[in-house]
Amino acid sequence: MSDERLIYLPLGGAGEIGMNCYVYGYGREGRERLIVVDLGVTFPEAETTPGVDLILPDIKWLADRADRIEAIFITHAHEDHVGALGHLWPRLKAQVYCRRFTGAIARLKMEDQGHPATAITVVEPRPDVVEAGPFRVQFVPVSHSIPESSALIIDTPVGRIVHSGDFKLDPNPVVGEPYDPEESDMVAGEGEGVKVLVCDSTNVFTPHPGRSESSIGPALRELVEGASGLVVATTFASNVARLKTLAEAGRAAGRSVCLMGRAMKRMVTAAVETGVLTDFPPTVPPEMAAEIPRGNLMLIVTGSQGERRAASAQLSRGKYLGIELKEGDTFLFSSKTIPGNERGVNRIINAYSEMGVNVVDDQTGRYHVSGHANRPDLERVHAAMKPAILIPMHGEHRHLREHARLAAAKGIASDVVTNGMMVDLTGETPEVVEYIETGRVYLDGTALVGAMDGVIRDRIRMAMNGHALITLIMDEDEAPLGDAWAELMGLPLRGRSGRLLAEVVEADLSEFLGRADTRLLANDDKMDEAVRRVVRQVAMEEVGKKPEVTVVVSRLLAG
Amino acid sequence: MSDERLIYLPLGGAGEIGMNCYVYGYGREGRERLIVVDLGVTFPEAETTPGVDLILPDIKWLADRADRIEAIFITHAHEDHVGALGHLWPRLKAQVYCRRFTGAIARLKMEDQGHPATAITVVEPRPDVVEAGPFRVQFVPVSHSIPESSALIIDTPVGRIVHSGDFKLDPNPVVGEPYDPEESDMVAGEGEGVKVLVCDSTNVFTPHPGRSESSIGPALRELVEGASGLVVATTFASNVARLKTLAEAGRAAGRSVCLMGRAMKRMVTAAVETGVLTDFPPTVPPEMAAEIPRGNLMLIVTGSQGERRAASAQLSRGKYLGIELKEGDTFLFSSKTIPGNERGVNRIINAYSEMGVNVVDDQTGRYHVSGHANRPDLERVHAAMKPAILIPMHGEHRHLREHARLAAAKGIASDVVTNGMMVDLTGETPEVVEYIETGRVYLDGTALVGAMDGVIRDRIRMAMNGHALITLIMDEDEAPLGDAWAELMGLPLRGRSGRLLAEVVEADLSEFLGRADTRLLANDDKMDEAVRRVVRQVAMEEVGKKPEVTVVVSRLLAG
Repeated sequence: MSDERLIYLPLGGAGEIGMNCYVYGYGREGRERLIVVDLGVTFPEAETTPGVDLILPDIKWLADRADRIEAIFITHAHEDHVGALGHLWPRLKAQVYCRRFTGAIARLKMEDQGHPATAITVVEPRPDVVEAGPFRVQFVPVSHSIPESSALIIDTPVGRIVHSGDFKLDPNPVVGEPYDPEESDMVAGEGEGVKVLVCDSTNVFTPHPGRSESSIGPALRELVEGASGLVVATTFASNVARLKTLAEAGRAAGRSVCLMGRAMKRMVTAAVETGVLTDFPPTVPPEMAAEIPRGNLMLIVTGSQGERRAASAQLSRGKYLGIELKEGDTFLFSSKTIPGNERGVNRIINAYSEMGVNVVDDQTGRYHVSGHANRPDLERVHAAMKPAILIPMHGEHRHLREHARLAAAKGIASDVVTNGMMVDLTGETPEVVEYIETGRVYLDGTALVGAMDGVIRDRIRMAMNGHALITLIMDEDEAPLGDAWAELMGLPLRGRSGRLLAEVVEADLSEFLGRADTRLLANDDKMDEAVRRVVRQVAMEEVGKKPEVTVVVSRLLAG
Repeated sequence: MSDERLIYLPLGGAGEIGMNCYVYGYGREGRERLIVVDLGVTFPEAETTPGVDLILPDIKWLADRADRIEAIFITHAHEDHVGALGHLWPRLKAQVYCRRFTGAIARLKMEDQGHPATAITVVEPRPDVVEAGPFRVQFVPVSHSIPESSALIIDTPVGRIVHSGDFKLDPNPVVGEPYDPEESDMVAGEGEGVKVLVCDSTNVFTPHPGRSESSIGPALRELVEGASGLVVATTFASNVARLKTLAEAGRAAGRSVCLMGRAMKRMVTAAVETGVLTDFPPTVPPEMAAEIPRGNLMLIVTGSQGERRAASAQLSRGKYLGIELKEGDTFLFSSKTIPGNERGVNRIINAYSEMGVNVVDDQTGRYHVSGHANRPDLERVHAAMKPAILIPMHGEHRHLREHARLAAAKGIASDVVTNGMMVDLTGETPEVVEYIETGRVYLDGTALVGAMDGVIRDRIRMAMNGHALITLIMDEDEAPLGDAWAELMGLPLRGRSGRLLAEVVEADLSEFLGRADTRLLANDDKMDEAVRRVVRQVAMEEVGKKPEVTVVVSRLLAG
């Protein structure tokens, strides 16, 4: 029996939705040749990551083994699959393989960070094959909410892996290849069949079969036709099929169509340049839109998730590029609000409501469909692929667990594998062989900060508790020179006593210093601790909270 | 013609869901006698109000006219209607009227803040009347998700106002009085009928008729009966009817029932003491729960919104009061996730998923019903009350606008009136007569902070940008004594150069001070500005972000 093994190790995306990064390896233990599937980001939020720009997977394990990486594969161009490429590639430096449209976006990610676009190789879909050490990899077109999404067929010495990528089953996806059950059967029927299906779990809790992207066209046309003022629609910038459907609805109603927002322009340009979008209706440039009578105009804008700087938020705050919404206009969310973004989206809806704009959202499901396979679709794929093993991915723990249960109920060996769990897939059932230290890295401005470094923890503490700065000068004889000085930031001006909090703090510190003994005054650490305690106690009495305290003691040198 | 007028002025709750506070007045302009309906709070969140404990309406307008206030009425005991009573009552000092159960909770709110519980008068429902200056006020029992909710009939010299409070139409509410259409007709039929309906707008976008609290009993019983391990259910602590339904489901399945969480205990105690809850199943105290075999136990716990300190979150983190959830147990959310709380709730669900607990949420609508009237219910009330004027309240702008449209479509005079808009209701249509400066006040620890005071803004800035503290000592000749000292909080340790950021900042400051002229060095404001600029520039180059900067310059006196 061979002592080579097939391993699977998710570094991101398994136990969360976002930040996808999966590793496969084959070879002797500790010497496996590796391939990486996707390098995505996830997005920060105020509660746990204030001020952070992007969140990346911690790829230390992979970077330490960069010489063993044969290739990086990117399944599609969503940020949670390709967004970290520019930031992490320098530590891996392997060749990157993807399809044409994904390649156009990946190239921009590399160039944004000053890395060579030549690291990216565009691959045609199956039957073309990328040879990557012990792996033979093919791209299988699947439907999703962005052009040229792909599943990967990863043939290994011990059998075939299908890595689903993000997908849905769409017989008529508007842009790209329709779902073809025969193709599925072929993938499953070749050679020994499918050994392992590593599968998208996003919509495992959605009980009804998914709907086709093309199914919402009629409702969108009806809505735009029935509108009288300006019509503005927002959706995910990368959903090129949706942009097309929206634009066609505008044109059908005799309106000029204008795309607004940088991300949208970037996506449509990439789609046109790579030939995935051939018959997009003509559009007018944003700077000309204001000239067109509002009843003849339709804007398609970025910002479906309430992002503060996107076009939809700008328009909700007033004039933007010469355009101002008003009574009788229509604003359509052709999108779903991702959990956690409700506040931002509602802020925009209420601002439009104040303007008298008619806001249409997706509560009814008439104007948006998901890009992920629902529960019955997943079951259909399980049945078609007949894998010996199913590993759920792309989901929070609850999604992975439910997906594993679904598979197990059909007699498929399955297990919940989360970030950092290395699993041996050589045998008939998945076996956990190691736990890798993994986690998140924050892009903070231009610096990378570890999630456990304490930098963001300090920021959260200042946001919760305020920050008191105490400066003290000690003379050559280790005695306080003058009074302590308190600068308070983010703390109430006055407390219970009615006096200025800073003054109360300073008075209490003076009193404390007056009776402190020389040994304490001469010791920096003890001084720091004692001053901190006094400040926190005074603040607690005055305003009912304990601030973060920074103490700076300057000692004049005798001389 | 009389020169007296009837006015309506919302100070909270109109243009938001939460923080309800409505003012009615009657009399000569500027001398109206006033009544206040509800004094509620709203809850802070990390993005806009980090570290804040509670958000209260700014009642300055009302406090300045405290001598004109006849009475305060509280419609029901939810936090967004009574939560601010203890904090704001000292500035109003009027007598507070409410029903028995609400009174029990209101008394606790007063006592918590050290105010006299005698300020609270418990009132029986209609036909009892509270005379309050020119107003005659009656409490009308309505169904809601807390006991003894009330609408108010406010009879004025120019006609009847019905202030709906929060309500639903429930023919079988489990606890409290059922909805009685005949009572509605009577309210509408007395005297001249209803002049103004001021009406709950929360569920105006929900297209189907509301469901009765009693309708979920069978599904809950079935769920608990089918469970094998420990069953834990969470709901809003104040939903006493739901607690009862849940407890009965537990008892029917032969389980001992235990209520866990301080808020839940407080609510049930108040409900039992005031006689609204007479036949609650027997419960076991939390400290005994761990003794009972898990298959024979059902916990009903606080924390349906994912609150970090509530019982549901405690249990999701491990052992709590001796109880630990495990594989095969069931956790039920008999509640809706309020928009904005999704992240916290999902965090708990995923933690339970990791434990192998079977989490049941309300996606299907089987285990929770709303406490507010849906769109068809609102239409039914409009039709029954036949008001001349409808003023939508208790809603974000989008809800108020939709509700006003709904009324207008039926020929009822209606307008969107938001916080701070004073409306004259004397005539046949509402007329805006004044805009009052209003807003929010934050309870921060024990201090009250104005939303515009800049305190919270500073905290948010520190959370986003980090905080750099620079201390400098200038000698008797206005020359720097030693080097500048930089303390950084919430900033990356190292930047682009690979050196410690604090050291780079200090080096650049030393260089700057070395070439600064004496006029600058002698001027505190100019020094502050210049040092700040240097620090922000260095940080931008090194880590790509500009921190908040506090500069402390200590000047030694010549002597």
